[in-house]
Amino acid sequence: MHKRLILSIALLLLFVQFSIAQNKIVVFQSDFGLKDGAVSAMKGVAMGVSPDLKLFDLTHEIPNYNIWEASYRLYQTVPYWPAGTLFVSVVDPGVGTSRKSVVLKTKTGQFIVTPDNGTLTLIAESLGIAELREIDEKVNRRNGSQDSYTFHGRDVYAYTAARLAAGVITYEQVGPVLPLNIVSIPYQKAVLENGVLKGDIPILDVQYGNVWTNIDASLFAKLNLKFGGILQVSIFHDHKKVYEGAMPYCQTFAVVPVGKPLAYINSLMQLSFALNQGDFAKDYHVGSGGDWSVEITITHK
Amino acid sequence: MHKRLILSIALLLLFVQFSIAQNKIVVFQSDFGLKDGAVSAMKGVAMGVSPDLKLFDLTHEIPNYNIWEASYRLYQTVPYWPAGTLFVSVVDPGVGTSRKSVVLKTKTGQFIVTPDNGTLTLIAESLGIAELREIDEKVNRRNGSQDSYTFHGRDVYAYTAARLAAGVITYEQVGPVLPLNIVSIPYQKAVLENGVLKGDIPILDVQYGNVWTNIDASLFAKLNLKFGGILQVSIFHDHKKVYEGAMPYCQTFAVVPVGKPLAYINSLMQLSFALNQGDFAKDYHVGSGGDWSVEITITHK
Amino acid sequence: MHKRLILSIALLLLFVQFSIAQNKIVVFQSDFGLKDGAVSAMKGVAMGVSPDLKLFDLTHEIPNYNIWEASYRLYQTVPYWPAGTLFVSVVDPGVGTSRKSVVLKTKTGQFIVTPDNGTLTLIAESLGIAELREIDEKVNRRNGSQDSYTFHGRDVYAYTAARLAAGVITYEQVGPVLPLNIVSIPYQKAVLENGVLKGDIPILDVQYGNVWTNIDASLFAKLNLKFGGILQVSIFHDHKKVYEGAMPYCQTFAVVPVGKPLAYINSLMQLSFALNQGDFAKDYHVGSGGDWSVEITITHK
Repeated sequence: MHKRLILSIALLLLFVQFSIAQNKIVVFQSDFGLKDGAVSAMKGVAMGVSPDLKLFDLTHEIPNYNIWEASYRLYQTVPYWPAGTLFVSVVDPGVGTSRKSVVLKTKTGQFIVTPDNGTLTLIAESLGIAELREIDEKVNRRNGSQDSYTFHGRDVYAYTAARLAAGVITYEQVGPVLPLNIVSIPYQKAVLENGVLKGDIPILDVQYGNVWTNIDASLFAKLNLKFGGILQVSIFHDHKKVYEGAMPYCQTFAVVPVGKPLAYINSLMQLSFALNQGDFAKDYHVGSGGDWSVEITITHK
Repeated sequence: MHKRLILSIALLLLFVQFSIAQNKIVVFQSDFGLKDGAVSAMKGVAMGVSPDLKLFDLTHEIPNYNIWEASYRLYQTVPYWPAGTLFVSVVDPGVGTSRKSVVLKTKTGQFIVTPDNGTLTLIAESLGIAELREIDEKVNRRNGSQDSYTFHGRDVYAYTAARLAAGVITYEQVGPVLPLNIVSIPYQKAVLENGVLKGDIPILDVQYGNVWTNIDASLFAKLNLKFGGILQVSIFHDHKKVYEGAMPYCQTFAVVPVGKPLAYINSLMQLSFALNQGDFAKDYHVGSGGDWSVEITITHK
Repeated sequence: MHKRLILSIALLLLFVQFSIAQNKIVVFQSDFGLKDGAVSAMKGVAMGVSPDLKLFDLTHEIPNYNIWEASYRLYQTVPYWPAGTLFVSVVDPGVGTSRKSVVLKTKTGQFIVTPDNGTLTLIAESLGIAELREIDEKVNRRNGSQDSYTFHGRDVYAYTAARLAAGVITYEQVGPVLPLNIVSIPYQKAVLENGVLKGDIPILDVQYGNVWTNIDASLFAKLNLKFGGILQVSIFHDHKKVYEGAMPYCQTFAVVPVGKPLAYINSLMQLSFALNQGDFAKDYHVGSGGDWSVEITITHK
């Protein structure tokens, strides 16, 4: 009988331990900035659902209404968070229009709570969609928010993410299953044609002014270029050339003099261009998005 | 005897569970910005009081010494956090002068730790004051800070909030009770007179450039305007008209063309003006504060 | 037997309590900014190591590659966090070069995970080095990061700090012990010579434009100046005088008129200069770093 008691207690403690060890992580992204109370209101609603949640930020400095960049920041970040993490992304030029509010579950186990307005483009491609559900806003909506039309981020997205993360509702209780065809933004894929590498500039490494392409290290490797080999790089905006130059392929920035250009593989394992301790994008007026493209050929191996 | 034992264990676990479920949340606001170590030092002091606290930020981008905006951000955010949450607000042009350091308890159960310099104006009106206590700085002060005159945020406010949130001290131990007449900033209230709605512009929705008034949806509703009805809006700075125009009252931004003006009820349930995917405040040079006012009449219902 | 059982349970609960009470705090600093996903990726890796960690930010707005300021922000902040706290600082102009990756343990019990590139200069002087270990990157490296050359912050520093903070590895398992001679940035120390106080301007209080010197209150006290006494202050850039003026020594800003200069002891207990509700640094074009110095004499006691 004592053994049974001890066993019960052990199981009870195990259960407590297990429930503590659950992933109750919610990560927020938006274009709200950090100057007003919008982000804090979302977090307050989440804490009201459960004080055991752990709340983090991806960024709130997405340029206003820039769905492409919202998509890119998720692509850049989600894979580094453990399975079970909830992401809330609120960048929405069409708030209040007919776009659906959804929760996507990736094949690697993370969840994204967002309007289905293109924000899911890159994460759906890179991690794959395990399941997609539409938020039933009649039941998954903060009490007292029925008259409020404009802050879905707080009243629907943060509230639903918090309840899902805390185990108050199951994924099934989010709402009905949708077919897996999310709204997707078209963009130029990376290709190698007749010895010319083509791709686009999905994003700038804004803090440093480095230019990141969508050309994977594995595709670049087909050129068989060693460190120190020279690339000829052209950058186009709306098909008009805005930069052309030669630069070495380097393992680290410090092997070229300060201010000189180099090509390297960035932390996402994609071909990128930089000036050592300088700002490539600013100096050469390079931007990012679907209307920016690059072409690369090899001068010296 | 076994039953008593099991009961004791159950009670013990319940107690553990209960103590985990307590609200140990502290939310920080200041005009310190995020570029130096001031915010982090405050949080370090709080973690030194108890590592079980959960620390959050409202904003640290309040314009320097802008008490009105500090008051507004609290008004905008506090109601969305659960009862028992501690707020620390450190925006203080008169640091070191005779203004009192206080902890206000709202009627909805949140606490605000702040200099009583006007910061409490709007939260006192909207949520009501349950109790007000002056911080006894002789006892509620970080050890070793007696010689430091200028960082009350860290040495008194963060320290006291952390000790109160963690249950190290009770609310009574903060210091003596004060009468409920806080320092209050005068401002124009919203009124409906002879069919003309008057109010002020307490704040801009800075990230998007939307103009928010202090006219509640319930007051606006007395005009009986349907969605699609047209408002005539005048905006004044120091009683001089700086904008006049007509715009529809809309449920969502997307029903007007990109760049066109609209009136809507914002997430705080107050009448606001915006340009769809544009920046109303910037385009028409509209600011906020006590010297900005609005007048609204109905053109077409 | 029941007593032993109760004792066992009590010990078990004590153990649970103890493990909850451990310091699992990690504080991040970088020059990454908050606009992209780099900071979030570091935190995701840490959460993947252990969801029980508590993650904070010092600042991510260190000017690009500014090792001096990274060093200063640690000096300003680390002492206010409890012993056992892990700091991760990633400001690194020489990423990929031969500088070592290290974990320093201060004599007060905090840990700093950083490249040994000068970042440790001020914290080593102020808190003292208890022990220094080089990170063995062969074992202390995120799985799957072997091909990624450029994001040590995520793959080595955040990962190692998280494992150390969570108790997955011991300090000894970080890697081999190093001699205590860290890489140190030379700078002008504060001195009192023939009645003239000399020092440098290690940092500006950027948010307010106050000018902070490295002259400690204890050194300043040797001048025996009372509040209200007048200082003659000269500020030099590359030995060229850029400011000269008289100002009172004050306990609080509000004792001088708005816009007027004053000298005071800041929250780090060092002599500083300010304009009451103004921006001293901006108005007089004062900067910070090794090439900025000050000289102070007493005009009226």
